[in-house]
Amino acid sequence: MSSKGSSKSKAFQAPRGTRDFYPREMALRRHVETCWRDASINWGFQEIEGPTFEHLDLYTVKSGPGIVSELFSFERSGGDTSYAMRPEFTPTLARMAVARGNALPVPTKWFSIPCLFRAERPQRGRLREHVQWNVDILGLSDADTDAELISVAVAALDRLGLDPSMVQVKYSHRDVVARLLTDLGVTSEHLSAAFDLLDRRDKLPADAFMEKATALGLDDAAVDRFDKLAHARTKAGEDPSTLADVPAEDLDHLLELDKALKHHDIAEWCHVDLGIVRGLAYYTGTVFEIHETSGAERAIAGGGRYDHLVELFGGPSTPACGFGMGDVVLSLVLQDRGLIDPDTLGPRPDVFVVCADDAARDHIVPTVARMRHAGLHARRSYKSTRNVGKLLKEAGQHDARIAIILGGELQEGIVSVKDLGSGDQQQVQLTELETAVHQLLMAP
Amino acid sequence: MSSKGSSKSKAFQAPRGTRDFYPREMALRRHVETCWRDASINWGFQEIEGPTFEHLDLYTVKSGPGIVSELFSFERSGGDTSYAMRPEFTPTLARMAVARGNALPVPTKWFSIPCLFRAERPQRGRLREHVQWNVDILGLSDADTDAELISVAVAALDRLGLDPSMVQVKYSHRDVVARLLTDLGVTSEHLSAAFDLLDRRDKLPADAFMEKATALGLDDAAVDRFDKLAHARTKAGEDPSTLADVPAEDLDHLLELDKALKHHDIAEWCHVDLGIVRGLAYYTGTVFEIHETSGAERAIAGGGRYDHLVELFGGPSTPACGFGMGDVVLSLVLQDRGLIDPDTLGPRPDVFVVCADDAARDHIVPTVARMRHAGLHARRSYKSTRNVGKLLKEAGQHDARIAIILGGELQEGIVSVKDLGSGDQQQVQLTELETAVHQLLMAP
Repeated sequence: MSSKGSSKSKAFQAPRGTRDFYPREMALRRHVETCWRDASINWGFQEIEGPTFEHLDLYTVKSGPGIVSELFSFERSGGDTSYAMRPEFTPTLARMAVARGNALPVPTKWFSIPCLFRAERPQRGRLREHVQWNVDILGLSDADTDAELISVAVAALDRLGLDPSMVQVKYSHRDVVARLLTDLGVTSEHLSAAFDLLDRRDKLPADAFMEKATALGLDDAAVDRFDKLAHARTKAGEDPSTLADVPAEDLDHLLELDKALKHHDIAEWCHVDLGIVRGLAYYTGTVFEIHETSGAERAIAGGGRYDHLVELFGGPSTPACGFGMGDVVLSLVLQDRGLIDPDTLGPRPDVFVVCADDAARDHIVPTVARMRHAGLHARRSYKSTRNVGKLLKEAGQHDARIAIILGGELQEGIVSVKDLGSGDQQQVQLTELETAVHQLLMAP
Repeated sequence: MSSKGSSKSKAFQAPRGTRDFYPREMALRRHVETCWRDASINWGFQEIEGPTFEHLDLYTVKSGPGIVSELFSFERSGGDTSYAMRPEFTPTLARMAVARGNALPVPTKWFSIPCLFRAERPQRGRLREHVQWNVDILGLSDADTDAELISVAVAALDRLGLDPSMVQVKYSHRDVVARLLTDLGVTSEHLSAAFDLLDRRDKLPADAFMEKATALGLDDAAVDRFDKLAHARTKAGEDPSTLADVPAEDLDHLLELDKALKHHDIAEWCHVDLGIVRGLAYYTGTVFEIHETSGAERAIAGGGRYDHLVELFGGPSTPACGFGMGDVVLSLVLQDRGLIDPDTLGPRPDVFVVCADDAARDHIVPTVARMRHAGLHARRSYKSTRNVGKLLKEAGQHDARIAIILGGELQEGIVSVKDLGSGDQQQVQLTELETAVHQLLMAP
């Protein structure tokens, strides 16, 4: 009754830009996800999830038809319906919010940890499938709300072992920047292009930047000040009023946000950077990115306020802000900083059962079963050796806390229990095994 | 700087056969996943994950080209590479095992909780996207291994509140059944068809069953006994030797498995059912399905031994067994049994901060932040009312354990802390708030 085994003996591989998570890699992924989830829950957010694929047109609404070439899309049912694997979660969130209509609580605080997909060419830090933490607050529009959103992002990074010397939230406010640009002489028809230029300030050579700034209709003095604005930033935790060359009366939104960040006790994680605009036109107020502070300056997260999002998907006018944080760059930063050792992240067995005497062999499975039914993480040796030294070495390789040794004394109803941390070993009645193990596990 | 708001005000919907998980539905999903994961870990399994989509031909190897019409598939890079959203996890597992080659430990005990996809028409209990718990043991071939696999499935169902009166593992062994069929007079060329017939025994009318049994070359007496075999089953926990009309000497594999199930202390959850064969030809030994016992008899899980799987994907000959358990039918069973109340499954706040006096308003955020930074799940009222009755009602709606009331006495550095379970309320120094809250939370 065997299967044919008509094996094309061809080695299959994972698709390019995707990952296989063996236990070691998975332990790291779960560690990151657990920090994300625990921070979300303690900050009062509720978890949601949507389909892994959506109707294709859900994505063109926000991003235009240009997005289609970046999607994995497919058709069903004679081609009248097109679907796409989700490239981002925000459209799903907006769809779900719109579907709830007036039943949506104020505020609605949601988070999600979806897999996302993009069809572009894979490169370091950008894969075709990745995991992204999404956090959103709908229904509130004040600076405290923006700060609460930033605060939960910081809380997760804190749990992961990062600190303000390693990562910084760079924030700005599009209304403040728009006003400063207008004061410089940028007319409303050039405002969009000026934002684009700010967004690319670090990617352009200095002369190209100057040339494009001049093309915005600015004279030399204004170009000079534009360049200064583009690089204006405070130090971590510093007041926005210390920003050079910026009139204090224009900073209202940034001062409010700074006050709220202090209330949330995360000011030292944050600084103003007027060069942060977030490319997408749909951002409407506060914008922020989280970058590592080391040379590479890789972006770990990005988000801000987008008060027109829900309306765009057919819902009522609803203030909203949110961010996304992917797992790929974050994991690289954690590894580069030596903050994670995948070998110690996996679940650690409470007990490891070994058999030192063939006569005790039939007790292995019942003993393991008893430990598991008592709620413990129990493993066993599957090896046929009865050499205690080798078996205890295996228990150590599994990083077990306690070894249970089944030997000849089992005939008198006695087993040995060894604390693999202290090395202490004791004999206990088989009937008292759960009690003895629990006592050892509770000991400091 | 607002986005265009060029809103096609069209209401978007989730694709047919997929689900939106709002916080209530997500809490149920997380509850099921947590029971799956906790059981897996306590039973010594390690978690893995693979890509959500794979090369299309990974699926045709095991299932033949017929599978393609049941898949969501798509092409990239000028059509030379075809991909499919994964319909099952086993091919990914086999691919990952093969890639490890000789570095694969013996045994390898892996579990995974992937989203899976099928393009067929959605119906109750069968969706286009669902979540499935997959558990596999590679490298061992004895009955203890099969029993350990069944045992972890039972452990998760136990954690979910099910018991042997509600669900039963029906098991059989393909070698035993093959021998019984051969004894009946089924020739080797008819064996496959005989298995198919067994598999469909409950879907065929009695006369169609008899007719097809006759077509296997059986005389009337043999058809009669075939019918009896197809319905032969023990009662829960009963010895396989109690099976009617079956020669005891043919039952070796079932007796071994029964002994191992007893060692694992789950015999009462299991019974022999010779009608269980699992359609797929690739099963090679033990086969089992888990069904609810109520009238509907919906299948919750299925699996067994498939010793040729790894070889089929180009690896070395490797004994293996595994099962899959989906979330859709399981969730229906749990709900029908009244075993879950999604309203109480979500995370419960430790504290809920309210403000009873406008003068204390600026303390709301810092107080919430302190509680969160102390590792607590803290929420607050975002309402502008200062009516304590209304605010405490809101704390109750959030199912918080403790309310922290910021009022006029804050001027003397004092806040009120109310245990929402007992109703006890006390005043504490603001500086001692963490200590007071932790004491209340630790109290029995």
